[in-house]
Amino acid sequence: MLNFNRHLSNTCIQKNNRLCIGLDVDNRKLHNTSISYMKGFIKDIIDATIDICPVYKVNLAFYERLGKYSFDLLSMIPEYIDSRAITIADAKRGDIGNSSKYYAEAIFTTLNYDSITVSPYMGEDSILPFCEREDKGVFILCLTSNQGSSNFQNKKIDENELFIHVAKLASKLSNNSNIGLVVGATKYDKMDSIKEVSGEMPWLIPGVGFQGGSLKDSITIGSKNNSIALINSSRSIIYAGDGGIKDIKLAAENFTNEIRKIL
Amino acid sequence: MLNFNRHLSNTCIQKNNRLCIGLDVDNRKLHNTSISYMKGFIKDIIDATIDICPVYKVNLAFYERLGKYSFDLLSMIPEYIDSRAITIADAKRGDIGNSSKYYAEAIFTTLNYDSITVSPYMGEDSILPFCEREDKGVFILCLTSNQGSSNFQNKKIDENELFIHVAKLASKLSNNSNIGLVVGATKYDKMDSIKEVSGEMPWLIPGVGFQGGSLKDSITIGSKNNSIALINSSRSIIYAGDGGIKDIKLAAENFTNEIRKIL
Repeated sequence: MLNFNRHLSNTCIQKNNRLCIGLDVDNRKLHNTSISYMKGFIKDIIDATIDICPVYKVNLAFYERLGKYSFDLLSMIPEYIDSRAITIADAKRGDIGNSSKYYAEAIFTTLNYDSITVSPYMGEDSILPFCEREDKGVFILCLTSNQGSSNFQNKKIDENELFIHVAKLASKLSNNSNIGLVVGATKYDKMDSIKEVSGEMPWLIPGVGFQGGSLKDSITIGSKNNSIALINSSRSIIYAGDGGIKDIKLAAENFTNEIRKIL
Repeated sequence: MLNFNRHLSNTCIQKNNRLCIGLDVDNRKLHNTSISYMKGFIKDIIDATIDICPVYKVNLAFYERLGKYSFDLLSMIPEYIDSRAITIADAKRGDIGNSSKYYAEAIFTTLNYDSITVSPYMGEDSILPFCEREDKGVFILCLTSNQGSSNFQNKKIDENELFIHVAKLASKLSNNSNIGLVVGATKYDKMDSIKEVSGEMPWLIPGVGFQGGSLKDSITIGSKNNSIALINSSRSIIYAGDGGIKDIKLAAENFTNEIRKIL
Protein backbone atom coordinates (compact mmCIF):
# COMPACT_ATOMS: atom_id res chain seq x y z
CA MET A 1 0.00 0.00 0.00
CA LEU A 2 1.31 3.45 -0.97
CA ASN A 3 1.90 6.05 1.72
CA PHE A 4 -0.38 9.08 1.46
CA ASN A 5 2.20 11.55 0.15
CA ARG A 6 3.26 9.20 -2.63
CA HIS A 7 -0.37 8.51 -3.57
CA LEU A 8 -1.07 12.27 -3.63
CA SER A 9 1.99 12.95 -5.72
CA ASN A 10 1.21 10.19 -8.22
CA THR A 11 -2.37 11.43 -8.64
CA CYS A 12 -1.29 15.04 -9.18
CA ILE A 13 1.44 14.13 -11.64
CA GLN A 14 -0.83 11.78 -13.56
CA LYS A 15 -3.47 14.51 -14.01
CA ASN A 16 -0.76 17.15 -14.53
CA ASN A 17 -2.59 19.40 -12.09
CA ARG A 18 -2.44 20.75 -8.52
CA LEU A 19 -6.05 21.89 -8.30
CA CYS A 20 -8.01 21.05 -5.16
CA ILE A 21 -11.70 21.85 -5.60
CA GLY A 22 -13.44 22.82 -2.38
CA LEU A 23 -16.86 21.19 -2.36
CA ASP A 24 -18.24 23.67 0.16
CA VAL A 25 -21.81 23.75 -1.01
CA ASP A 26 -24.43 25.81 0.77
CA ASN A 27 -27.85 24.58 -0.28
CA ARG A 28 -29.30 28.01 0.53
CA LYS A 29 -27.25 29.48 -2.30
CA LEU A 30 -28.67 27.06 -4.88
CA HIS A 31 -31.72 27.63 -7.06
CA ASN A 32 -33.29 24.64 -5.35
CA THR A 33 -32.55 24.24 -1.63
CA SER A 34 -33.55 20.58 -1.25
CA ILE A 35 -30.98 18.06 -0.03
CA SER A 36 -31.50 15.80 -3.03
CA TYR A 37 -30.81 18.69 -5.39
CA MET A 38 -27.67 19.50 -3.38
CA LYS A 39 -26.53 15.89 -3.69
CA GLY A 40 -27.08 15.95 -7.44
CA PHE A 41 -25.25 19.27 -7.72
CA ILE A 42 -22.20 17.86 -5.91
CA LYS A 43 -22.18 14.80 -8.15
CA ASP A 44 -22.48 17.01 -11.24
CA ILE A 45 -19.48 19.09 -10.11
CA ILE A 46 -17.46 15.91 -9.64
CA ASP A 47 -18.55 14.50 -13.03
CA ALA A 48 -17.62 17.74 -14.79
CA THR A 49 -14.15 18.02 -13.23
CA ILE A 50 -12.89 14.56 -12.25
CA ASP A 51 -10.89 14.06 -15.46
CA ILE A 52 -8.62 17.00 -14.66
CA CYS A 53 -8.97 17.47 -10.88
CA PRO A 54 -6.70 15.36 -8.63
CA VAL A 55 -8.03 16.46 -5.22
CA TYR A 56 -11.38 17.41 -3.66
CA LYS A 57 -11.65 19.06 -0.25
CA VAL A 58 -14.81 19.18 1.84
CA ASN A 59 -15.16 21.67 4.67
CA LEU A 60 -17.28 19.85 7.23
CA ALA A 61 -18.80 23.09 8.57
CA PHE A 62 -20.98 23.34 5.46
CA TYR A 63 -22.49 19.92 6.08
CA GLU A 64 -22.72 19.55 9.86
CA ARG A 65 -25.34 22.28 10.03
CA LEU A 66 -27.61 19.97 8.00
CA GLY A 67 -28.05 17.59 10.91
CA LYS A 68 -29.42 14.22 9.92
CA TYR A 69 -28.46 14.77 6.26
CA SER A 70 -24.86 15.51 7.16
CA PHE A 71 -23.62 11.92 7.25
CA ASP A 72 -25.38 11.03 4.00
CA LEU A 73 -23.81 13.89 2.11
CA LEU A 74 -20.35 13.63 3.66
CA SER A 75 -20.08 9.88 3.12
CA MET A 76 -21.49 10.12 -0.40
CA ILE A 77 -18.56 12.23 -1.63
CA PRO A 78 -15.65 9.76 -1.19
CA GLU A 79 -17.94 6.95 -2.29
CA TYR A 80 -18.88 8.77 -5.49
CA ILE A 81 -15.30 9.83 -6.22
CA ASP A 82 -14.38 6.16 -5.76
CA SER A 83 -10.59 6.53 -5.75
CA ARG A 84 -10.54 8.60 -8.94
CA ALA A 85 -9.12 11.50 -6.90
CA ILE A 86 -7.81 12.20 -3.39
CA THR A 87 -10.28 13.43 -0.76
CA ILE A 88 -9.52 15.84 2.10
CA ALA A 89 -11.90 16.26 5.04
CA ASP A 90 -11.24 19.85 6.06
CA ALA A 91 -12.26 19.34 9.67
CA LYS A 92 -9.53 21.19 11.61
CA ARG A 93 -9.84 18.71 14.47
CA GLY A 94 -7.49 18.30 17.43
CA ASP A 95 -8.13 17.01 20.95
CA ILE A 96 -6.47 14.99 23.69
CA GLY A 97 -5.12 11.70 22.39
CA ASN A 98 -8.10 9.57 23.29
CA SER A 99 -10.55 11.90 21.54
CA SER A 100 -8.31 12.52 18.51
CA LYS A 101 -8.28 8.75 18.05
CA TYR A 102 -12.08 8.78 17.77
CA TYR A 103 -12.02 11.74 15.36
CA ALA A 104 -9.54 9.84 13.20
CA GLU A 105 -11.92 6.88 13.18
CA ALA A 106 -14.83 9.17 12.23
CA ILE A 107 -12.98 10.70 9.26
CA PHE A 108 -10.88 7.79 7.98
CA THR A 109 -13.13 4.82 8.70
CA THR A 110 -16.73 5.96 9.12
CA LEU A 111 -16.64 8.62 6.38
CA ASN A 112 -13.73 7.07 4.46
CA TYR A 113 -11.80 10.24 3.53
CA ASP A 114 -8.17 9.93 2.45
CA SER A 115 -6.94 12.79 4.63
CA ILE A 116 -7.87 15.41 7.21
CA THR A 117 -6.83 18.90 8.32
CA VAL A 118 -5.89 19.24 12.01
CA SER A 119 -5.27 22.17 14.34
CA PRO A 120 -1.94 22.06 16.20
CA TYR A 121 -2.80 24.13 19.29
CA MET A 122 -2.94 21.12 21.64
CA GLY A 123 0.43 19.80 20.49
CA GLU A 124 2.06 16.54 19.50
CA ASP A 125 -0.12 14.06 21.36
CA SER A 126 -3.25 15.63 19.86
CA ILE A 127 -1.89 15.13 16.30
CA LEU A 128 -0.29 11.69 16.54
CA PRO A 129 -3.50 9.61 16.58
CA PHE A 130 -4.32 10.98 13.11
CA CYS A 131 -0.95 9.90 11.73
CA GLU A 132 -1.03 6.20 12.47
CA ARG A 133 -2.17 4.96 9.09
CA GLU A 134 0.40 5.48 6.32
CA ASP A 135 -2.29 5.56 3.66
CA LYS A 136 -4.21 8.40 5.36
CA GLY A 137 -2.92 11.96 5.20
CA VAL A 138 -2.81 14.74 7.81
CA PHE A 139 -2.56 18.40 6.82
CA ILE A 140 -1.55 20.43 9.88
CA LEU A 141 -2.61 24.08 10.05
CA CYS A 142 0.64 26.02 9.84
CA LEU A 143 0.04 29.55 8.54
CA THR A 144 -3.57 30.18 7.59
CA SER A 145 -4.87 32.63 5.01
CA ASN A 146 -7.18 34.64 7.28
CA GLN A 147 -6.43 37.93 9.04
CA GLY A 148 -6.55 36.27 12.47
CA SER A 149 -3.38 34.35 11.63
CA SER A 150 -1.57 37.46 12.90
CA ASN A 151 -2.97 37.03 16.44
CA PHE A 152 -0.81 34.04 17.35
CA GLN A 153 0.68 32.26 14.32
CA ASN A 154 2.92 35.19 13.36
CA LYS A 155 4.25 35.78 16.84
CA LYS A 156 7.87 35.00 17.60
CA ILE A 157 8.88 32.32 20.07
CA ASP A 158 12.65 32.64 20.50
CA GLU A 159 14.02 33.16 17.00
CA ASN A 160 11.10 31.91 14.97
CA GLU A 161 7.41 32.55 14.47
CA LEU A 162 4.93 30.08 15.94
CA PHE A 163 4.12 28.76 12.45
CA ILE A 164 7.76 27.77 11.97
CA HIS A 165 7.64 25.81 15.23
CA VAL A 166 4.51 24.08 13.97
CA ALA A 167 6.22 23.23 10.66
CA LYS A 168 9.17 21.80 12.57
CA LEU A 169 6.95 19.60 14.73
CA ALA A 170 5.12 18.43 11.60
CA SER A 171 8.41 17.55 9.97
CA LYS A 172 9.50 15.63 13.07
CA LEU A 173 6.27 13.60 13.06
CA SER A 174 6.44 12.81 9.35
CA ASN A 175 7.97 9.34 9.59
CA ASN A 176 5.13 7.73 7.69
CA SER A 177 5.29 10.18 4.77
CA ASN A 178 1.69 11.11 5.39
CA ILE A 179 1.92 14.63 6.83
CA GLY A 180 1.46 17.94 5.01
CA LEU A 181 0.98 21.59 5.95
CA VAL A 182 -1.75 24.16 5.38
CA VAL A 183 -0.07 27.36 4.16
CA GLY A 184 -2.26 30.30 3.11
CA ALA A 185 -1.58 31.82 -0.30
CA THR A 186 -1.95 35.29 1.19
CA LYS A 187 1.27 34.68 3.12
CA TYR A 188 3.62 34.33 0.15
CA ASP A 189 6.34 36.40 1.89
CA LYS A 190 6.58 33.71 4.57
CA MET A 191 6.56 30.73 2.23
CA ASP A 192 10.31 30.50 1.75
CA SER A 193 10.96 30.33 5.47
CA ILE A 194 8.37 27.58 5.88
CA LYS A 195 9.76 25.66 2.91
CA GLU A 196 13.19 25.64 4.55
CA VAL A 197 11.90 23.46 7.38
CA SER A 198 9.09 21.56 5.64
CA GLY A 199 11.25 19.30 3.46
CA GLU A 200 9.20 17.18 1.08
CA MET A 201 5.90 17.63 2.88
CA PRO A 202 3.03 18.58 0.56
CA TRP A 203 1.24 21.89 1.11
CA LEU A 204 -2.46 22.54 0.96
CA ILE A 205 -2.77 26.20 -0.07
CA PRO A 206 -6.06 28.05 0.40
CA GLY A 207 -6.52 31.76 -0.23
CA VAL A 208 -5.97 32.07 -3.98
CA GLY A 209 -9.02 33.71 -5.58
CA PHE A 210 -11.43 35.62 -3.30
CA GLN A 211 -8.79 36.06 -0.60
CA GLY A 212 -6.25 37.48 -3.07
CA GLY A 213 -3.25 35.14 -2.68
CA SER A 214 -0.67 34.71 -5.43
CA LEU A 215 -1.03 31.59 -7.57
CA LYS A 216 2.46 31.90 -9.02
CA ASP A 217 4.26 32.20 -5.68
CA SER A 218 2.13 29.44 -4.20
CA ILE A 219 3.04 26.95 -6.89
CA THR A 220 6.64 28.03 -7.41
CA ILE A 221 7.62 28.09 -3.77
CA GLY A 222 5.25 25.32 -2.71
CA SER A 223 6.72 22.91 -5.29
CA LYS A 224 10.32 23.27 -4.11
CA ASN A 225 12.03 20.18 -2.64
CA ASN A 226 10.16 18.10 -5.20
CA SER A 227 6.93 18.40 -3.22
CA ILE A 228 3.29 18.92 -4.09
CA ALA A 229 1.61 22.34 -3.75
CA LEU A 230 -2.16 21.87 -3.83
CA ILE A 231 -4.08 24.99 -4.78
CA ASN A 232 -7.51 25.04 -3.21
CA SER A 233 -10.38 26.84 -4.87
CA SER A 234 -13.91 26.69 -3.56
CA ARG A 235 -16.16 29.64 -4.33
CA SER A 236 -14.31 30.73 -7.51
CA ILE A 237 -15.19 27.37 -9.03
CA ILE A 238 -18.43 26.06 -7.55
CA TYR A 239 -20.19 29.43 -7.86
CA ALA A 240 -18.56 30.42 -11.16
CA GLY A 241 -20.56 32.34 -13.74
CA ASP A 242 -24.29 31.72 -13.46
CA GLY A 243 -23.70 28.70 -11.18
CA GLY A 244 -24.46 26.16 -13.90
CA ILE A 245 -22.28 23.10 -14.46
CA LYS A 246 -20.93 24.44 -17.78
CA ASP A 247 -19.51 27.49 -16.01
CA ILE A 248 -18.09 25.34 -13.21
CA LYS A 249 -16.37 23.06 -15.72
CA LEU A 250 -14.97 26.07 -17.57
CA ALA A 251 -13.71 27.68 -14.33
CA ALA A 252 -11.96 24.44 -13.36
CA GLU A 253 -10.40 24.17 -16.82
CA ASN A 254 -9.26 27.79 -16.81
CA PHE A 255 -7.77 27.43 -13.34
CA THR A 256 -6.04 24.22 -14.42
CA ASN A 257 -4.54 26.00 -17.43
CA GLU A 258 -3.21 28.75 -15.15
CA ILE A 259 -1.65 26.11 -12.91
CA ARG A 260 -0.14 24.17 -15.80
CA LYS A 261 1.47 27.32 -17.21
CA ILE A 262 3.37 27.73 -13.93
CA LEU A 263 4.22 24.07 -13.33
CA MET B 1 -32.81 36.76 27.77
CA LEU B 2 -29.89 36.05 30.14
CA ASN B 3 -26.37 36.12 28.78
CA PHE B 4 -24.61 32.77 28.89
CA ASN B 5 -22.26 33.49 31.77
CA ARG B 6 -25.11 34.66 33.98
CA HIS B 7 -27.21 31.64 33.04
CA LEU B 8 -24.28 29.34 33.84
CA SER B 9 -23.63 31.06 37.14
CA ASN B 10 -27.29 30.94 38.19
CA THR B 11 -27.52 27.24 37.38
CA CYS B 12 -24.35 26.37 39.29
CA ILE B 13 -25.32 28.42 42.32
CA GLN B 14 -28.83 27.02 42.38
CA LYS B 15 -27.53 23.43 42.38
CA ASN B 16 -24.66 24.39 44.71
CA ASN B 17 -22.29 22.52 42.44
CA ARG B 18 -19.59 23.00 39.82
CA LEU B 19 -19.64 19.48 38.40
CA CYS B 20 -19.63 19.07 34.63
CA ILE B 21 -20.30 15.46 33.66
CA GLY B 22 -18.65 14.41 30.41
CA LEU B 23 -21.09 12.25 28.47
CA ASP B 24 -18.34 10.67 26.40
CA VAL B 25 -19.89 7.28 25.92
CA ASP B 26 -18.19 4.62 23.83
CA ASN B 27 -20.74 1.99 22.95
CA ARG B 28 -17.93 -0.57 22.56
CA LYS B 29 -17.26 -0.27 26.27
CA LEU B 30 -20.84 -1.11 27.24
CA HIS B 31 -22.25 -4.57 27.96
CA ASN B 32 -24.56 -4.06 25.01
CA THR B 33 -23.08 -2.22 22.00
CA SER B 34 -26.34 -1.31 20.23
CA ILE B 35 -27.16 2.34 19.61
CA SER B 36 -30.53 2.08 21.34
CA TYR B 37 -28.86 0.71 24.47
CA MET B 38 -26.34 3.56 24.29
CA LYS B 39 -29.18 6.08 24.05
CA GLY B 40 -30.89 4.54 27.06
CA PHE B 41 -27.62 4.52 28.99
CA ILE B 42 -27.08 8.26 28.36
CA LYS B 43 -30.64 9.02 29.45
CA ASP B 44 -30.16 6.93 32.58
CA ILE B 45 -26.97 8.85 33.46
CA ILE B 46 -28.84 12.13 33.05
CA ASP B 47 -31.82 10.89 35.11
CA ALA B 48 -29.53 9.73 37.91
CA THR B 49 -27.55 12.99 38.13
CA ILE B 50 -29.67 15.89 36.86
CA ASP B 51 -30.84 16.93 40.36
CA ILE B 52 -27.31 17.74 41.42
CA CYS B 53 -25.40 18.28 38.16
CA PRO B 54 -25.54 21.78 36.61
CA VAL B 55 -23.56 21.10 33.41
CA TYR B 56 -23.14 18.25 30.89
CA LYS B 57 -20.38 18.23 28.30
CA VAL B 58 -20.37 16.07 25.19
CA ASN B 59 -17.16 15.43 23.28
CA LEU B 60 -18.28 15.15 19.67
CA ALA B 61 -15.43 12.78 18.77
CA PHE B 62 -17.22 9.96 20.58
CA TYR B 63 -20.35 10.37 18.47
CA GLU B 64 -19.12 11.39 15.02
CA ARG B 65 -17.55 7.98 14.50
CA LEU B 66 -21.08 6.54 14.65
CA GLY B 67 -21.98 8.04 11.28
CA LYS B 68 -25.70 8.13 10.63
CA TYR B 69 -26.50 7.68 14.34
CA SER B 70 -24.36 10.67 15.32
CA PHE B 71 -26.98 13.37 14.78
CA ASP B 72 -29.67 11.36 16.57
CA LEU B 73 -27.54 10.89 19.67
CA LEU B 74 -26.03 14.37 19.73
CA SER B 75 -29.36 16.14 19.29
CA MET B 76 -31.11 13.87 21.78
CA ILE B 77 -28.92 15.06 24.67
CA PRO B 78 -29.92 18.77 24.85
CA GLU B 79 -33.48 17.79 24.03
CA TYR B 80 -33.60 15.28 26.89
CA ILE B 81 -31.90 17.66 29.35
CA ASP B 82 -34.53 20.18 28.31
CA SER B 83 -33.02 23.26 30.05
CA ARG B 84 -32.61 21.47 33.39
CA ALA B 85 -28.83 21.94 33.03
CA ILE B 86 -26.34 23.70 30.75
CA THR B 87 -24.94 21.79 27.76
CA ILE B 88 -21.45 22.13 26.28
CA ALA B 89 -20.58 20.74 22.86
CA ASP B 90 -16.89 19.96 23.25
CA ALA B 91 -16.11 20.32 19.57
CA LYS B 92 -12.87 22.35 19.57
CA ARG B 93 -13.85 23.98 16.28
CA GLY B 94 -12.21 26.97 14.63
CA ASP B 95 -11.99 27.98 10.97
CA ILE B 96 -12.03 31.06 8.75
CA GLY B 97 -14.97 33.33 9.55
CA ASN B 98 -17.31 32.01 6.90
CA SER B 99 -16.84 28.40 8.02
CA SER B 100 -16.91 29.18 11.75
CA LYS B 101 -20.30 30.78 11.13
CA TYR B 102 -21.57 27.46 9.76
CA TYR B 103 -20.06 25.53 12.67
CA ALA B 104 -21.83 27.90 15.07
CA GLU B 105 -25.07 27.19 13.25
CA ALA B 106 -24.46 23.43 13.47
CA ILE B 107 -23.85 23.49 17.23
CA PHE B 108 -26.19 26.24 18.43
CA THR B 109 -29.11 25.86 16.04
CA THR B 110 -29.09 22.41 14.44
CA LEU B 111 -27.98 20.53 17.58
CA ASN B 112 -29.19 23.17 20.05
CA TYR B 113 -26.30 23.12 22.54
CA ASP B 114 -25.89 26.04 24.94
CA SER B 115 -22.17 26.39 24.37
CA ILE B 116 -19.13 25.13 22.47
CA THR B 117 -15.37 24.76 22.92
CA VAL B 118 -13.21 26.43 20.25
CA SER B 119 -9.54 26.27 19.29
CA PRO B 120 -7.80 29.68 19.09
CA TYR B 121 -4.99 28.86 16.63
CA MET B 122 -6.60 30.73 13.71
CA GLY B 123 -7.16 33.89 15.77
CA GLU B 124 -9.83 36.45 16.43
CA ASP B 125 -11.84 36.24 13.20
CA SER B 126 -12.11 32.45 13.60
CA ILE B 127 -13.63 32.85 17.10
CA LEU B 128 -15.95 35.83 16.63
CA PRO B 129 -18.70 34.04 14.65
CA PHE B 130 -19.26 31.77 17.67
CA CYS B 131 -19.72 34.75 20.01
CA GLU B 132 -22.56 36.54 18.31
CA ARG B 133 -25.43 35.20 20.40
CA GLU B 134 -25.34 36.39 24.03
CA ASP B 135 -27.24 33.32 25.20
CA LYS B 136 -24.72 30.90 23.69
CA GLY B 137 -21.35 30.34 25.36
CA VAL B 138 -17.86 29.91 23.93
CA PHE B 139 -15.08 28.20 25.90
CA ILE B 140 -11.76 28.99 24.25
CA LEU B 141 -8.90 26.49 24.65
CA CYS B 142 -6.33 28.32 26.75
CA LEU B 143 -4.08 25.86 28.60
CA THR B 144 -5.07 22.25 28.05
CA SER B 145 -4.49 19.33 30.39
CA ASN B 146 -2.54 17.09 28.01
CA GLN B 147 1.24 16.74 27.71
CA GLY B 148 1.25 18.32 24.25
CA SER B 149 0.25 21.65 25.79
CA SER B 150 3.98 22.14 26.32
CA ASN B 151 4.69 22.11 22.56
CA PHE B 152 3.21 25.54 21.87
CA GLN B 153 0.87 26.78 24.63
CA ASN B 154 3.65 27.11 27.23
CA LYS B 155 6.06 28.92 24.95
CA LYS B 156 6.85 32.56 25.62
CA ILE B 157 5.95 35.30 23.18
CA ASP B 158 7.56 38.46 24.51
CA GLU B 159 6.96 38.43 28.26
CA ASN B 160 4.09 35.96 28.42
CA GLU B 161 3.28 32.41 27.46
CA LEU B 162 1.05 31.83 24.45
CA PHE B 163 -1.81 30.74 26.74
CA ILE B 164 -1.73 34.17 28.43
CA HIS B 165 -2.02 35.85 25.04
CA VAL B 166 -5.02 33.62 24.31
CA ALA B 167 -6.62 34.54 27.65
CA LYS B 168 -6.12 38.22 26.87
CA LEU B 169 -7.74 37.92 23.47
CA ALA B 170 -10.65 36.01 25.06
CA SER B 171 -11.05 38.77 27.62
CA LYS B 172 -11.04 41.40 24.90
CA LEU B 173 -13.77 39.57 22.96
CA SER B 174 -15.96 39.04 26.00
CA ASN B 175 -18.33 41.98 25.50
CA ASN B 176 -21.40 39.76 25.47
CA SER B 177 -20.50 37.99 28.74
CA ASN B 178 -20.57 34.69 26.93
CA ILE B 179 -16.91 33.69 26.77
CA GLY B 180 -15.00 31.31 29.03
CA LEU B 181 -11.65 29.51 29.04
CA VAL B 182 -10.55 25.88 29.07
CA VAL B 183 -7.83 25.54 31.71
CA GLY B 184 -6.47 22.08 32.50
CA ALA B 185 -6.41 21.03 36.15
CA THR B 186 -2.94 19.55 35.67
CA LYS B 187 -1.63 23.09 35.20
CA TYR B 188 -2.45 24.43 38.66
CA ASP B 189 0.87 26.29 38.90
CA LYS B 190 -0.19 28.43 35.94
CA MET B 191 -3.73 29.13 37.12
CA ASP B 192 -2.96 32.27 39.09
CA SER B 193 -1.31 33.94 36.12
CA ILE B 194 -4.28 33.09 33.90
CA LYS B 195 -6.75 34.30 36.52
CA GLU B 196 -5.01 37.68 36.57
CA VAL B 197 -6.05 38.34 32.98
CA SER B 198 -9.28 36.34 32.75
CA GLY B 199 -11.46 38.59 34.93
CA GLU B 200 -14.92 37.15 35.53
CA MET B 201 -14.78 34.64 32.69
CA PRO B 202 -15.86 31.13 33.72
CA TRP B 203 -13.37 28.28 33.40
CA LEU B 204 -14.03 24.80 32.13
CA ILE B 205 -11.47 22.61 33.89
CA PRO B 206 -10.72 19.11 32.59
CA GLY B 207 -7.98 16.88 33.97
CA VAL B 208 -9.13 16.16 37.53
CA GLY B 209 -9.36 12.39 38.02
CA PHE B 210 -7.54 10.13 35.57
CA GLN B 211 -5.18 12.91 34.48
CA GLY B 212 -4.25 13.75 38.08
CA GLY B 213 -5.13 17.45 38.38
CA SER B 214 -5.84 19.08 41.75
CA LEU B 215 -9.52 19.57 42.57
CA LYS B 216 -8.80 21.99 45.41
CA ASP B 217 -6.57 24.32 43.39
CA SER B 218 -8.92 24.17 40.43
CA ILE B 219 -11.91 25.32 42.46
CA THR B 220 -10.09 27.73 44.74
CA ILE B 221 -8.19 29.56 42.03
CA GLY B 222 -10.83 29.09 39.36
CA SER B 223 -13.52 30.70 41.54
CA LYS B 224 -11.61 33.93 42.15
CA ASN B 225 -13.07 37.17 40.76
CA ASN B 226 -16.49 35.80 41.60
CA SER B 227 -16.39 33.48 38.61
CA ILE B 228 -17.46 29.91 37.92
CA ALA B 229 -14.94 27.05 37.87
CA LEU B 230 -16.54 24.03 36.20
CA ILE B 231 -14.90 20.73 37.06
CA ASN B 232 -15.24 18.24 34.26
CA SER B 233 -15.34 14.54 34.97
CA SER B 234 -15.99 11.98 32.28
CA ARG B 235 -14.52 8.52 32.80
CA SER B 236 -14.38 8.72 36.62
CA ILE B 237 -18.15 9.05 36.64
CA ILE B 238 -19.63 7.30 33.63
CA TYR B 239 -17.45 4.22 34.06
CA ALA B 240 -17.51 4.24 37.87
CA GLY B 241 -17.59 0.93 39.77
CA ASP B 242 -19.18 -1.85 37.75
CA GLY B 243 -20.57 0.63 35.23
CA GLY B 244 -24.12 0.39 36.54
CA ILE B 245 -26.28 3.45 37.12
CA LYS B 246 -26.13 3.07 40.90
CA ASP B 247 -22.35 3.40 40.84
CA ILE B 248 -22.55 6.34 38.44
CA LYS B 249 -25.02 8.13 40.71
CA LEU B 250 -22.81 7.46 43.73
CA ALA B 251 -19.69 8.70 41.93
CA ALA B 252 -21.47 11.93 40.94
CA GLU B 253 -22.68 12.41 44.51
CA ASN B 254 -19.24 11.76 45.98
CA PHE B 255 -17.61 14.14 43.53
CA THR B 256 -20.27 16.75 44.31
CA ASN B 257 -19.56 16.40 48.02
CA GLU B 258 -15.85 16.91 47.40
CA ILE B 259 -16.64 20.04 45.40
CA ARG B 260 -19.07 21.40 48.02
CA LYS B 261 -16.47 20.96 50.78
CA ILE B 262 -14.14 23.29 48.89
CA LEU B 263 -16.73 25.84 47.72
